[in-house]
Amino acid sequence: MPSKPLNIKIEGTTGPVFRRDHRKADGRCLSLYGYAPHEGAALDELLRPDTAPGEVRRDPLRNSWAVYAPHRQSRTFLPSAADDPLAPARPGAPPTEIPFEDFELAVFENRFPSLAPDVRPGQLSPWASGPATGQCDVVVFSKEPSGSLGTLSQARRVLLIEALIDRYRALHEAGFAYVMPFENRGEQVGVTLPHPHGQIYAFQDVPEPQRAAARAFGNGYDLVAEHAAWGGQFDVAEDGGLVAFCPPFARFPFETWIMPRRPCAGPWALDAEGAHSLARLLAEVPRKLDALFGEPMPYMMSFQAAPREAASRFQFTVQFFPVLRAPGRLKFLASVEQFTGVFTVDVVPEAAAERLRAL
Amino acid sequence: MPSKPLNIKIEGTTGPVFRRDHRKADGRCLSLYGYAPHEGAALDELLRPDTAPGEVRRDPLRNSWAVYAPHRQSRTFLPSAADDPLAPARPGAPPTEIPFEDFELAVFENRFPSLAPDVRPGQLSPWASGPATGQCDVVVFSKEPSGSLGTLSQARRVLLIEALIDRYRALHEAGFAYVMPFENRGEQVGVTLPHPHGQIYAFQDVPEPQRAAARAFGNGYDLVAEHAAWGGQFDVAEDGGLVAFCPPFARFPFETWIMPRRPCAGPWALDAEGAHSLARLLAEVPRKLDALFGEPMPYMMSFQAAPREAASRFQFTVQFFPVLRAPGRLKFLASVEQFTGVFTVDVVPEAAAERLRAL
Repeated sequence: MPSKPLNIKIEGTTGPVFRRDHRKADGRCLSLYGYAPHEGAALDELLRPDTAPGEVRRDPLRNSWAVYAPHRQSRTFLPSAADDPLAPARPGAPPTEIPFEDFELAVFENRFPSLAPDVRPGQLSPWASGPATGQCDVVVFSKEPSGSLGTLSQARRVLLIEALIDRYRALHEAGFAYVMPFENRGEQVGVTLPHPHGQIYAFQDVPEPQRAAARAFGNGYDLVAEHAAWGGQFDVAEDGGLVAFCPPFARFPFETWIMPRRPCAGPWALDAEGAHSLARLLAEVPRKLDALFGEPMPYMMSFQAAPREAASRFQFTVQFFPVLRAPGRLKFLASVEQFTGVFTVDVVPEAAAERLRAL
Repeated sequence: MPSKPLNIKIEGTTGPVFRRDHRKADGRCLSLYGYAPHEGAALDELLRPDTAPGEVRRDPLRNSWAVYAPHRQSRTFLPSAADDPLAPARPGAPPTEIPFEDFELAVFENRFPSLAPDVRPGQLSPWASGPATGQCDVVVFSKEPSGSLGTLSQARRVLLIEALIDRYRALHEAGFAYVMPFENRGEQVGVTLPHPHGQIYAFQDVPEPQRAAARAFGNGYDLVAEHAAWGGQFDVAEDGGLVAFCPPFARFPFETWIMPRRPCAGPWALDAEGAHSLARLLAEVPRKLDALFGEPMPYMMSFQAAPREAASRFQFTVQFFPVLRAPGRLKFLASVEQFTGVFTVDVVPEAAAERLRAL
């Protein structure tokens, strides 16, 4: 009987890519994605600490949910370069999360997850509504300890899109209702590891903003047609069939979205040309944001694709929420935003788009 | 005909207080509150800059609203002590917002308001849903340039409560649907003026979280009975008929609420003893938060009282949202919170309450 091959060949949107699945010593899954099969031998690795199960509690007044994950207090906080847990492992050196000496792109289950697939209900507190079920993955963009989406090669950004499409598929197949890839960038938004990486949260239930968006799209809201009607004054950049723009109803100063100019439910529905355009805009938008104030722009970025069981017509966008409103000045979400949900915006989106377009 | 008296005597909850109304040179209203009538002569004052009207836009996907107020970009940012705009004026010195040499407590219309009562619809952009109608007041706790709720005298905190009750009355009478007094404290939540002060936002419409709370209370949710059933393990402090506690569904680490232990729709429904208890807890809670990590705790605090036309049974609380999760470490609201509204909480409320109770 032939042994199971180390690598799986994926017929991606842009061409073949390879995935090597590895079960970490503590049971977590690690997948290495690359244009070439990965053959290296595994070294020592970091182990998941003992974690208490997380739980979900309902706020009866807001009718909202929060996740309680006290074990996250001990998570790694701005380690020195020598202790970078996202670096490739080296023989004889302290272990890292990726027990291989070389890799292109890696995805693995978070060592300090807020959501976990296997919470045992018996350990919940009397205040819990239920276990914090889900999955939290880390996506390591590169083996290099520094850089950004804008400094990665175009091929690597395309590989990132292929890997995310594969993760959407796997996490939807695992039964999760909503899968959200995202990147927090910069210490100003709380990033604790400088090594370029993103994350993926897979939720058991669709969160309320995505539920509202699915309702709006299901009721016929057509963002592609709306955008066309705006007439270009909100546009920041375009590439092939995709456009980057500041939505007229942006809540963050210089908030920028990337969107296919045709109906598209998620990155899995792009064609090869579309995936290449998205990869280029995933560099161009952060480059423009960095150029805006001449300093790296801290931001939150997320792929907003259709939930697993959304009504049709959900429109895929990639949304950047930058947090500087002026050089060195953060946009704070203080009492008004936190208590009422009403955002006060200092920079009107049409002016933001004009400035970003000119860069 | 006798001239109009300079001061109005208010029969407050705790006894008489006096209010002197002053129309500022640029038309804004200023009210000085005190235990004694205020008789001083007015000096020069700061003028409101020319402001563009703010507008409201609707996010069709979130079904939420944002306020666009671009003139706020030029607002005063961490001025030197000599330029403190909340200090009493001095003859011959640059003007301040309060053109009197002495005062106890002052409330005036914000010079850089997000919401304004008199927006002219003709100036709105094509993207507006409507004008940003409302009122933004500044509440100056004291003429001293430093200090906090915890360092004010008990009498001054009682005067603050009396002034807020008077402002609730006036702003409800002016037709605003929801009035929210609040305090942002600390540069970490974006405070641009260190002089101890709070703010009041009066909204034309009830924001969604308060609408949800009114619905929950209207449908019979009884927070007083719930709290009693929790059995004290969430309690932080008590004073007379009021209690401070960490709600089991807190979203911020060390989030603490103050509440009367009986049905009470707002501070206006407190008796004298209740107002004194509230004033003491308004000092005790921030003192405990400051003691927690041995550094001033940055927080957002708000009075959450019934909207003007809420169903009965709305329960009044004062909510503190502290933003440190450990010494020197901020709780960030990053991609997960911003994109999904799901808060991830590192400190379970029952553990937070135990630590705060012990301080």
